[in-house]
Amino acid sequence: MKDNATRLYESAIVIDGLIISKWSGPLFAEMQKAGLTAANCTCSVWENFSETVANIAQWNGWFREHGDHIVKATSVADIRNAKAAGKTAVILGMQNTSAFEDKISYVEILKTLGVGIAQMTYNTQNWVGSGCYESRDSGLSDFGHDVVAEMNRVGMLCDLSHVGPKTSRDVIDASTAPVAYSHCLPSGLKTHPRNKSDEELRYIVEKGGFVGVTMFPPFLAKGVNADISDYVAAMDYVINLVGEDAVGIGTDFTQDYGPDFFDWLNHDKGFGRKLTSFGEIINPEGFRLVRDFPNIADAMSRAGWGDAKIEKVLGLNWLALLDRVWR
Amino acid sequence: MKDNATRLYESAIVIDGLIISKWSGPLFAEMQKAGLTAANCTCSVWENFSETVANIAQWNGWFREHGDHIVKATSVADIRNAKAAGKTAVILGMQNTSAFEDKISYVEILKTLGVGIAQMTYNTQNWVGSGCYESRDSGLSDFGHDVVAEMNRVGMLCDLSHVGPKTSRDVIDASTAPVAYSHCLPSGLKTHPRNKSDEELRYIVEKGGFVGVTMFPPFLAKGVNADISDYVAAMDYVINLVGEDAVGIGTDFTQDYGPDFFDWLNHDKGFGRKLTSFGEIINPEGFRLVRDFPNIADAMSRAGWGDAKIEKVLGLNWLALLDRVWR
Repeated sequence: MKDNATRLYESAIVIDGLIISKWSGPLFAEMQKAGLTAANCTCSVWENFSETVANIAQWNGWFREHGDHIVKATSVADIRNAKAAGKTAVILGMQNTSAFEDKISYVEILKTLGVGIAQMTYNTQNWVGSGCYESRDSGLSDFGHDVVAEMNRVGMLCDLSHVGPKTSRDVIDASTAPVAYSHCLPSGLKTHPRNKSDEELRYIVEKGGFVGVTMFPPFLAKGVNADISDYVAAMDYVINLVGEDAVGIGTDFTQDYGPDFFDWLNHDKGFGRKLTSFGEIINPEGFRLVRDFPNIADAMSRAGWGDAKIEKVLGLNWLALLDRVWR
Repeated sequence: MKDNATRLYESAIVIDGLIISKWSGPLFAEMQKAGLTAANCTCSVWENFSETVANIAQWNGWFREHGDHIVKATSVADIRNAKAAGKTAVILGMQNTSAFEDKISYVEILKTLGVGIAQMTYNTQNWVGSGCYESRDSGLSDFGHDVVAEMNRVGMLCDLSHVGPKTSRDVIDASTAPVAYSHCLPSGLKTHPRNKSDEELRYIVEKGGFVGVTMFPPFLAKGVNADISDYVAAMDYVINLVGEDAVGIGTDFTQDYGPDFFDWLNHDKGFGRKLTSFGEIINPEGFRLVRDFPNIADAMSRAGWGDAKIEKVLGLNWLALLDRVWR
């Protein structure tokens, strides 16, 4: 007989706010089999417009080739339909606004092509603002204000995970739609340029925004020695600050990638100066791979979470956020 | 009291299979006021992919700015809704496949961005095949076969107006969906590289395809001295060959453009060798400008056309074709 956590997980909408893994047929099958209802899948990091379009074209091919496992999602209805069909809905997301280049009009073009979420900056400064590894964060540029307004207009979620603190606050203030840290950890548990202070976590939620909690080991207090209960404890830390209605999952799974990929991520524009070093990436025990996804409901249950809290954090909170932003 | 032709025109779905005018707010207002339900509006001729995306981004701006006059149409329902709302539905069309560059995947990308119709070649040879002004037409290339199959798959109409005769026949044979000459005249009335023989006109319709009839003066027997009755007579010439269910309007209005634009059209790739010379462009008397569109129903009526024939050629035939191709 299935236990309560398993039954709960199987009936739930499960949404991962950030996956940047090495996409392949076997991984898509694993996402589906793991009961992932939807995921924000990165299709652009340092890429410019045409490189990002090429990545989206590749995704279009995958949607055809692997249509038994994944479907493209551009609406909350698409996510609900994926759940009904037992497939994984892919939300195309960018971790940078480099693909907009210097053209506000590319925001709508990329939204039309399926991009539902875009992070304003990736680690360093761009046309829009500054990243979390930039020496000085002068905040959201005037062009950045135009980008935020256009993202609001077309219905694209502003993600602030890798964004600098001043730029993040400016975006939170400028945006007329809710914004998110799709995948972050609290600096209350570990000091790190990528982690967010209690004040920052409270501020985004006060303004109607959202916090997806990651388990990327370099940002966890126990690093590669953490286990799934440490991840749930990090979620509880955030929930204690901001309540249980504005928090979700954002794993940052980098499955099947090797060191070359992290080198590319951790150099400015992919090949410039080195920004940081991750060391070995070993996800928390019990949540090492996408296939371990079902374990999270059990870990939440073991932490004393009630059914309603589990369902909200597993996916209902993400769904409500996207519903408000995508309109 | 309104006469029968006026009443018929006002209630009819009126579709123009090709306009390549200098787009502006006043022109959009004129299209709407003239009772144009929908038009295939050229958004790319010699442009590559990124230049075409820039043009589409400009169109997105126009749809916002001039939303009282025009709406974007990507389905037959959009066209019917435009009629109900008293607006003009714009079908984004390309007169060349240069925007696909060497990438089959760009067909779906451009379809997603709103391109519903693409001409396989514009006057000269490209990756896909040959144009009507090319010295030798070796037919549809292997890449061209892939493009036709992909256009069939995503639901984009293959236009053959400026395409060479051998390439045209190859496309007609290769396509699993109906194809069209969106704007052409019969060489039975005037010999010209751009005009189509009786055999060619019969062949495309035998294979389920379509003929849009143009009135572009360089291709008319009477040239700049033609009047609207000569245009209706040209339609009747085609209808006598292929029947009244596969024929429509394709004006090729080039309104508000000056000589520089025709120079660009008539040089290979816009700035290469000169291909042809048009002389002065004066459209047939009674149909000089977009605002004269309502006159066409009267001219058809004067030519002895019955109501059903008028309604079909004004727009119902185009609508049925697009319904089959766009799915």
